Amino acid sequence: MCGIVGYIGMRDAQDVLLSGLAKLEYRGYDSAGVAVRGVEQIEVRKKAGKLANLQGELSGAPLPGTLGIGHTRWATHGLPNDTNAHPHATEDGRLVIIHNGIIENYLSLKAGLRERGHVFRSETDSEVLAHLIEEKYDLTGGDLYESVRLALGEVRGAYGIVVTHVDHREIVAARTVSPLVMGVGEGEMFLASDVPALLPYTRRMVFLHDGDMVVLHDDGFRVTDLQGNTLTRSIDTIEWDAEAAEKGGYDSYMLKEIYEQPQALTNTLIGRLHDETGEVNLDINLDPASFKRISIIACGTAYYAGLVGEYLIEQLARIPVEVDVASEYRYRDPIVSPETLAIVISQSGETIDTLEALREAKKGGARTLGVINAKGSSMTRELDDTLYIHAGPEIGVASTKAYTSMVGAMLMLALWLARARGTLSEEAGKELLHATRELPRLVEEALSEERVSRIREVAERYAHARDYLFLGRGVNAPTAFEGALKLKEISYIHAEGYAAGEMKHGPIALIDANLPVVVVGTESRLLEKTISNVQEVRARAGRVILLLSDGDTENAQHADDVLYVPRSHEMVSPIVNVVTLQLLSYFTATHLGKDVDKPRNLAKSVTVE
Amino acid sequence: MCGIVGYIGMRDAQDVLLSGLAKLEYRGYDSAGVAVRGVEQIEVRKKAGKLANLQGELSGAPLPGTLGIGHTRWATHGLPNDTNAHPHATEDGRLVIIHNGIIENYLSLKAGLRERGHVFRSETDSEVLAHLIEEKYDLTGGDLYESVRLALGEVRGAYGIVVTHVDHREIVAARTVSPLVMGVGEGEMFLASDVPALLPYTRRMVFLHDGDMVVLHDDGFRVTDLQGNTLTRSIDTIEWDAEAAEKGGYDSYMLKEIYEQPQALTNTLIGRLHDETGEVNLDINLDPASFKRISIIACGTAYYAGLVGEYLIEQLARIPVEVDVASEYRYRDPIVSPETLAIVISQSGETIDTLEALREAKKGGARTLGVINAKGSSMTRELDDTLYIHAGPEIGVASTKAYTSMVGAMLMLALWLARARGTLSEEAGKELLHATRELPRLVEEALSEERVSRIREVAERYAHARDYLFLGRGVNAPTAFEGALKLKEISYIHAEGYAAGEMKHGPIALIDANLPVVVVGTESRLLEKTISNVQEVRARAGRVILLLSDGDTENAQHADDVLYVPRSHEMVSPIVNVVTLQLLSYFTATHLGKDVDKPRNLAKSVTVE
Repeated sequence: MCGIVGYIGMRDAQDVLLSGLAKLEYRGYDSAGVAVRGVEQIEVRKKAGKLANLQGELSGAPLPGTLGIGHTRWATHGLPNDTNAHPHATEDGRLVIIHNGIIENYLSLKAGLRERGHVFRSETDSEVLAHLIEEKYDLTGGDLYESVRLALGEVRGAYGIVVTHVDHREIVAARTVSPLVMGVGEGEMFLASDVPALLPYTRRMVFLHDGDMVVLHDDGFRVTDLQGNTLTRSIDTIEWDAEAAEKGGYDSYMLKEIYEQPQALTNTLIGRLHDETGEVNLDINLDPASFKRISIIACGTAYYAGLVGEYLIEQLARIPVEVDVASEYRYRDPIVSPETLAIVISQSGETIDTLEALREAKKGGARTLGVINAKGSSMTRELDDTLYIHAGPEIGVASTKAYTSMVGAMLMLALWLARARGTLSEEAGKELLHATRELPRLVEEALSEERVSRIREVAERYAHARDYLFLGRGVNAPTAFEGALKLKEISYIHAEGYAAGEMKHGPIALIDANLPVVVVGTESRLLEKTISNVQEVRARAGRVILLLSDGDTENAQHADDVLYVPRSHEMVSPIVNVVTLQLLSYFTATHLGKDVDKPRNLAKSVTVE
Repeated sequence: MCGIVGYIGMRDAQDVLLSGLAKLEYRGYDSAGVAVRGVEQIEVRKKAGKLANLQGELSGAPLPGTLGIGHTRWATHGLPNDTNAHPHATEDGRLVIIHNGIIENYLSLKAGLRERGHVFRSETDSEVLAHLIEEKYDLTGGDLYESVRLALGEVRGAYGIVVTHVDHREIVAARTVSPLVMGVGEGEMFLASDVPALLPYTRRMVFLHDGDMVVLHDDGFRVTDLQGNTLTRSIDTIEWDAEAAEKGGYDSYMLKEIYEQPQALTNTLIGRLHDETGEVNLDINLDPASFKRISIIACGTAYYAGLVGEYLIEQLARIPVEVDVASEYRYRDPIVSPETLAIVISQSGETIDTLEALREAKKGGARTLGVINAKGSSMTRELDDTLYIHAGPEIGVASTKAYTSMVGAMLMLALWLARARGTLSEEAGKELLHATRELPRLVEEALSEERVSRIREVAERYAHARDYLFLGRGVNAPTAFEGALKLKEISYIHAEGYAAGEMKHGPIALIDANLPVVVVGTESRLLEKTISNVQEVRARAGRVILLLSDGDTENAQHADDVLYVPRSHEMVSPIVNVVTLQLLSYFTATHLGKDVDKPRNLAKSVTVE
């Protein structure tokens, strides 16, 4: 999503802004810009495309100054071009803003401003905000803080906004929904949408809350609410290692993160499994007997982790589970009560749809639990309990290790609930714990050189297909969905996942000799049924890429290409199986020359609706 | 699915078989064949492709005889070619069978038969059955009934099977899961997989039950179970009008059925709405206070009707609802109790996945309710209550009028539950009843000549797109899903439906100037949010086809093409809105020269897994 950086102090502002924006590149963006306050004016430079374009322009003619704001934009209103990039200035260029989020009533605000003589240069909702603040600035006789506050009172939507004015050595910022974090230095202050941008300068951070406004000066800051009341916010010290996010020896973050999965899974599981008793220790306060229904809420890849979780919890703990896409859940007036446990799943802990859905669930009185990767993220501050997945920073926009760790966390949660509620015997618990403990080793095996080169060979053979189907059943139906999503995200091939038995109720019409169909056919009590579906595809000349468990030579006859995966207990197999599908997508995309770490149009952490 | 016809009597068997198979064409098939018993042998003729191919061959050299069996095949094992078509005969040609369904253990049976010297001509599971029966025939010293019974004892799977032998003037048949109906004449007997094949000859029918075997002679029949015990089965008289299924003046059944929707909806609603009290009368025995959860189970189009139902029931009656794809539900050991109401939705009432899921729900003690079109179908005989949709026969393989009538039935069910449980006031009930009563008129309006020609124009403009996205929110998210399914089914374009807010979590990567995105943007409290998603598509150069409510000129600026639909209450709008999407698919497919009534690979009533 959009990235924000702000600086006031003694350093060269342009340097701080560009280095900060570079650290936020992983969030996804399509244009970038900076504004630096000089003696008599604020200079703005902005360019469509990668940050390098902007850096190129500035290297020839740097902007001098020690106060500035910078932005990477992920387009919501208007195309990603130079004009629509941030910062946005008023006509006289004296007031400059950057903005994340969406102003929902921007069209009516714009109409009013136009009537009162304002002229607009861009199609963005953000420029409207700049003009609105300018209008208030005149009204308040030049009080920047007050003019921002009054303007925000007329706005409906989500925002992280940062404002500066040529007449004031200060930065005014505010957030509703979109995240903002402040870095506290010695005689200097920083602002950013995320921690990594500030780590090179300070480890002392203030996480602004929803509805906070802040004024930054060289030597301090003041936080207020939107009514103007002063608030107290604590300064936290962050221990995070910025180096952990480097690519290592790999061609891309994504590939590195695929190979990190055995380690990430180990971190997810470590210290939580008790083999002697068949029990799991999650270190959460949740009373496993305090609810009757579970609502799992998530977006994208995390949603598919939720579907695996639904299957596991229903099978093992016999509690009814519903899984919802967060953007739908938050607006459908969901049925929630204190007998509901709401589980949100999010790598970043910032996904705005999921965050708002969490708030909706809390409103209904639900007990809440988060399955989250990023510590200190917005969701973790609002949840009753957080089950961290400890997957480490994930930079690749297409999630890999966060997914397998999320599924690992859901598996442990299911085991914990099942043991606590008496639906799983000690013996069965021990067996599943044993299977769970095997996971890092099995994923390591799934990543063996021989297997990976076989996956690459198959991926390249089908790389020019126009579209793809992915099929699976039961606990591996979501594996098929996630495999399809991955291929969509990084190769831009239209892949769709379906429950294998549902294919004949529609999608089978798509099947001809040009359509590769990937089928998860690993060991399962439903394998015979899945093979029947494979027969239906083959009977219509479809091309079948079949995932089989090591040693299953009998079913190999039904496939055009077989990809063998290590044998695992059916209940834990989604974690082992998906790795092969991640690599299938990866090699398809790289063969087609796509940038897998920054796929077009996508953002790592989606903080607009 | 596969069609079966059998005859024994005084008529020319070939005539009866061909006319019967023609009446079953709507079920979908890819090859056809007949076998007629002559004096010294049984002659078999079979051809891949349409029934006309077979008719062509037989018209030159008809098969004389008064006992025969015929079959239309929808491929499950082996390609649709002449060899794999049914009937299948033993090597000596003396025993001939036809078979619907899937024999799951056919590979191991085949291996055993091969060892014992049997030679196979086709790749089908069905031929294996023929050889197995032949083996038993020798064992029993030539008892045809007994040899079929013994063979079926070794078989695992689903079947409707019909067997004849040159030495016997009788037909032996049996069913497990796959439907079979027997027609009772004067000195003649008929068999078929569905009623229409028999209507020209008799209205006296026996619906065989799961696990029934039957022996047919010229002047009577005997039903037994698979253990050989004689059973009593009643003869029903069918009132169905076979003429109702003709195309009328339209180019296709599908177009006729699209235009029949105002009438079909009227039939669904008629006599069930009480405007004075704001109440609904469904004439079912269900106690609306007797359950705490609802499980909706269906496949394909009916599944999407279930998703609309979920939204309506949760919103109006505040009962937690879960919707499952039947093929997944039946195998996932679902959580069911006597406090569960299981609702199955099926046009045919024969969909095998749904039927088996219904049985699974009953096993768990659920109360059951069906939303069904076909009277006397298998499901209706096992349900506690059936809410018929009265849409009339639907012949087009891609469902249209059954969908809108199913949604209409779900809407009435939601209103009934809400009024009975006190979650909807009399006033609000009256308002929604009024909106419901308007539906036939609004759908009629949606089918106005002017609108239809506009839809055709837009469809043809985008007909050569490789793929499509369909987006919607809330109660109209399933409208988008159903729109995408329809396009897949009849045009073979890879269309996918997504909740509008979920698009940015993955599918947005697909968006470029070649991807048409259809967005349901009719009047709704979420319209502003949906328009934000439209902006995200447009900002990436995507092409937007936007459904807007009549008079919404403001949002027209955000679309490449606008399709206006009549304004309706948001809760009933899925029924009005989907009609435009049905036509969009229809005109896309006809522009591309596809056979919309018999799309490739698809079957009307899916009676195999």
